[in-house]
Amino acid sequence: MPHISLGNDWPGIVSLFAYRPEAAKPMIDLVELMLRGPNSLSPGERELIGAYVSGLNDCSFCTDAHAAFAAAQLPEGMALVDQVRSDLDAAPVSPKMHALLRIAGAVQRGGKNVRNEDVAAARQAGATDVEIHDTVLIAAMFCLANRYVDGLATTLPEDPATYAQLADLIVNVGYSAVSGAPAAQGE
Amino acid sequence: MPHISLGNDWPGIVSLFAYRPEAAKPMIDLVELMLRGPNSLSPGERELIGAYVSGLNDCSFCTDAHAAFAAAQLPEGMALVDQVRSDLDAAPVSPKMHALLRIAGAVQRGGKNVRNEDVAAARQAGATDVEIHDTVLIAAMFCLANRYVDGLATTLPEDPATYAQLADLIVNVGYSAVSGAPAAQGE
Repeated sequence: MPHISLGNDWPGIVSLFAYRPEAAKPMIDLVELMLRGPNSLSPGERELIGAYVSGLNDCSFCTDAHAAFAAAQLPEGMALVDQVRSDLDAAPVSPKMHALLRIAGAVQRGGKNVRNEDVAAARQAGATDVEIHDTVLIAAMFCLANRYVDGLATTLPEDPATYAQLADLIVNVGYSAVSGAPAAQGE
Repeated sequence: MPHISLGNDWPGIVSLFAYRPEAAKPMIDLVELMLRGPNSLSPGERELIGAYVSGLNDCSFCTDAHAAFAAAQLPEGMALVDQVRSDLDAAPVSPKMHALLRIAGAVQRGGKNVRNEDVAAARQAGATDVEIHDTVLIAAMFCLANRYVDGLATTLPEDPATYAQLADLIVNVGYSAVSGAPAAQGE
């Protein structure tokens, strides 16, 4: 049960977006830009960073949601997401994604854990400055979202199929579809 | 030296806002709303939460900046900020602020560290549901900002007086003044 009375039955962060729509607006704008805006990292790769960090933060809702969003947008699907989450070193991602995911993991532990050699390794593997920047910011965004979702003890969906339904909305409409605003509640 | 070439000499998060203004816009909108928007917690109290969490995350720029912003807006000034940061239990804040700062500290460690009894204590001390929500979100926001600032190894101001100058801007203009946009660079 959530720590406060949210006045709606949405799961996870969707319930918080509906509770405080003024705060939801800029958060959704940021997430839409960083996860789905124009970028040399694909939406699937960026969602993979989010699912990986959410797993490290042990946030069930965000992990399962963004794993579904990554799987829906990566050719390798959920198998790759699971491999990255269970054993990053052995996962069949590109050297660049390996290096960026290692930076994301360092950010999850705390900003000062990102070492010069982590950044050098990413650059060596072909990452641009913007990609390194965006990886750090995306990882940091999930450190916000994971704490927001669990810090208020939001609920999980009763039906795990909800994650795939959310993935359909995210891929086809975007994050505005989960704003908790009246239009989205009709979905 | 920052991990990537930011193309400007601003310190801390201001350098990142200038580097990636599209991402800065929603972050500044969120910070302006949550730290300076209409709220039953004063701007000084909300900045105090930010300074406290930034200290726990060992982020020098954010700690010193938001300590200055809190001090500029609290009747007790920097003495109270220092007391909260060095010994929360003994700091002369209201029972409600004590309980909310304890929740913020739990969020800093991870969302699941917020216990039912922490929330009950805040409510017992007079905190509303919105105040509990906003405390969790503000603490989570600083867990993003601290990781963003240190994860990219942004610089500290050469002159510590910069923090008081930033405080003047924040108190009198708002967070849009540090957006790194051309108008702000003329400040």
